[in-house]
Amino acid sequence: MDNYQSLLDLFLNHLETYRKNLDSRSPKELYEPENYILSLGGKRLRPLLALIACDLFDKEPKLALNSALSVELFHNFSLIHDDILDAAPLRRNKETVHVKWNTNIAILSGDVMLIKAKQALEHYDFKEFKKLNTLFNKTAIEVCEGQQNDMNFESQDNIHVTNYIDMITNKTAVLLGCSLKMGAINANTKDEDQNNLYAFGKHLGIAFQLMDDLLDAFASDSKKFGKQIGGDIIANKKTFLFLKAQELANEKQQKALAKFMKTKDLIKKVEGILNIYNELDIKKLCQQEADLHTLQAIDYLNKVNANVSKKEALKKYAKELLHRQA
Amino acid sequence: MDNYQSLLDLFLNHLETYRKNLDSRSPKELYEPENYILSLGGKRLRPLLALIACDLFDKEPKLALNSALSVELFHNFSLIHDDILDAAPLRRNKETVHVKWNTNIAILSGDVMLIKAKQALEHYDFKEFKKLNTLFNKTAIEVCEGQQNDMNFESQDNIHVTNYIDMITNKTAVLLGCSLKMGAINANTKDEDQNNLYAFGKHLGIAFQLMDDLLDAFASDSKKFGKQIGGDIIANKKTFLFLKAQELANEKQQKALAKFMKTKDLIKKVEGILNIYNELDIKKLCQQEADLHTLQAIDYLNKVNANVSKKEALKKYAKELLHRQA
Repeated sequence: MDNYQSLLDLFLNHLETYRKNLDSRSPKELYEPENYILSLGGKRLRPLLALIACDLFDKEPKLALNSALSVELFHNFSLIHDDILDAAPLRRNKETVHVKWNTNIAILSGDVMLIKAKQALEHYDFKEFKKLNTLFNKTAIEVCEGQQNDMNFESQDNIHVTNYIDMITNKTAVLLGCSLKMGAINANTKDEDQNNLYAFGKHLGIAFQLMDDLLDAFASDSKKFGKQIGGDIIANKKTFLFLKAQELANEKQQKALAKFMKTKDLIKKVEGILNIYNELDIKKLCQQEADLHTLQAIDYLNKVNANVSKKEALKKYAKELLHRQA
Repeated sequence: MDNYQSLLDLFLNHLETYRKNLDSRSPKELYEPENYILSLGGKRLRPLLALIACDLFDKEPKLALNSALSVELFHNFSLIHDDILDAAPLRRNKETVHVKWNTNIAILSGDVMLIKAKQALEHYDFKEFKKLNTLFNKTAIEVCEGQQNDMNFESQDNIHVTNYIDMITNKTAVLLGCSLKMGAINANTKDEDQNNLYAFGKHLGIAFQLMDDLLDAFASDSKKFGKQIGGDIIANKKTFLFLKAQELANEKQQKALAKFMKTKDLIKKVEGILNIYNELDIKKLCQQEADLHTLQAIDYLNKVNANVSKKEALKKYAKELLHRQA
């Protein structure tokens, strides 16, 4: 991360200026929630990827600042609305927008944020603007489809690992690909390079999500992980781990899985399901799947015609991010 | 209206094709609500205005078909989300989306519809695309601000007629201006003509809303009006009528207004407030304000450099629409 501190600072400065402009806007019910969620911090991974991508081609990273702002606003819009859908009380240990204000304000301030995410792209010239917008629209729709499929999975029984990979690709991974591709568009690179960077980001995003699933069940330190360990198991979430276990389980294990899904004693439930995961070596299989997507990501990055040492730095950063989670 | 039947048919055909494409999209929870709300009908005033504007300059109206689709999708997105905010059970005598499905689906399918409204503009070339998008973004934000201010008015006491006019300008009128301006952009007219058409639509929109407020209190036939007469009075809505009455009322009338606002007997409440409106000649004042905006609208239309007989037809249509409501 330290290598990219100057890019991160560049973005944070830009975000600060944007947030200051929100102060003067009314009605405040629309703009205070936007300012609030942007103040909660986070890794700022998406905007950083946009700047990194532009810098990769030895172009001024500031060319990608408004793409970076656009993806960060979009991401935060999706958090506001997803927190309503999930009835989530907390986000980064602070109240969610629909709790701190109310659901109506969360819906409408989210809507405005989605529009402002697109408005950030108006700084770019005609051709660049259209290319960025077309990518943004396609990605935004995929993210919504991923979110809906994630909700649908809760009540569907015939979900397989491939459905799950498709869902997380839409819900999480395409926005990372989009962020990188936007930066490459701002650098005015060839389509081929833009598309290879997109694929790099997409597979990296899938690997991130798989590692997140893995840690949700197997992290040794909940503080470091930042979430309650076993949360997905308690919520009966159909993650890679669960679906893979269901796929490989023998009859006895199938019955045990079904039994533990209904178990009210949460400690017994987590223990019981983790035992089955261990019997079936699910942790290793999930790690292998994540490794597969990481390798695919690196393959795509290798194909990109960009500054070689900067590509190496990006590979190192990607691996650190994956490793840091583990 | 009959004069514009062929333009309306042109749009309805385009909408039909768009809706057919929705059938094959998944997850169906996102696309069935979109298809449903588009099936509920309505005047299709906004898309029609886009086509009329393009035709006004003797350009092929079909050039504006995707602008027309964009404003109609945006309008319907706003209906889905507004119906959640207003907890409205019915829209055009059918269940609202959040009732027929649920709030989560209404939020997310609305989000997708907002993105697809913008995607419809991708059919246009770079320069046209950017101009349309910039107008769309500005308008969409104003509509959300208008909606939030409308909600805020419920609990605010210091609202004046000018605040109300500002609110309905944003919530209702700018989208009519935007629809016309989009059609003018598609006709590749001068900026001056585009802006005059926008102002025509905006003032017409204000006049429409004022007539709607007037009819809500004074319509003689609720069936013809399509809504319950006195609905705004029952809901203590701060309409032009109410705010004007509050402004002009003497001390006795002020007290009576405040009393009737709290009256539980709804028949007495409506009667009591209508009496005060009559004492203060509020109907006439509202009609005068609507006439003022209609005249301003016509002034702007007169300035537009377009086919003279088509401008006359548009004036006639606008007056018919205003008259039909009364």
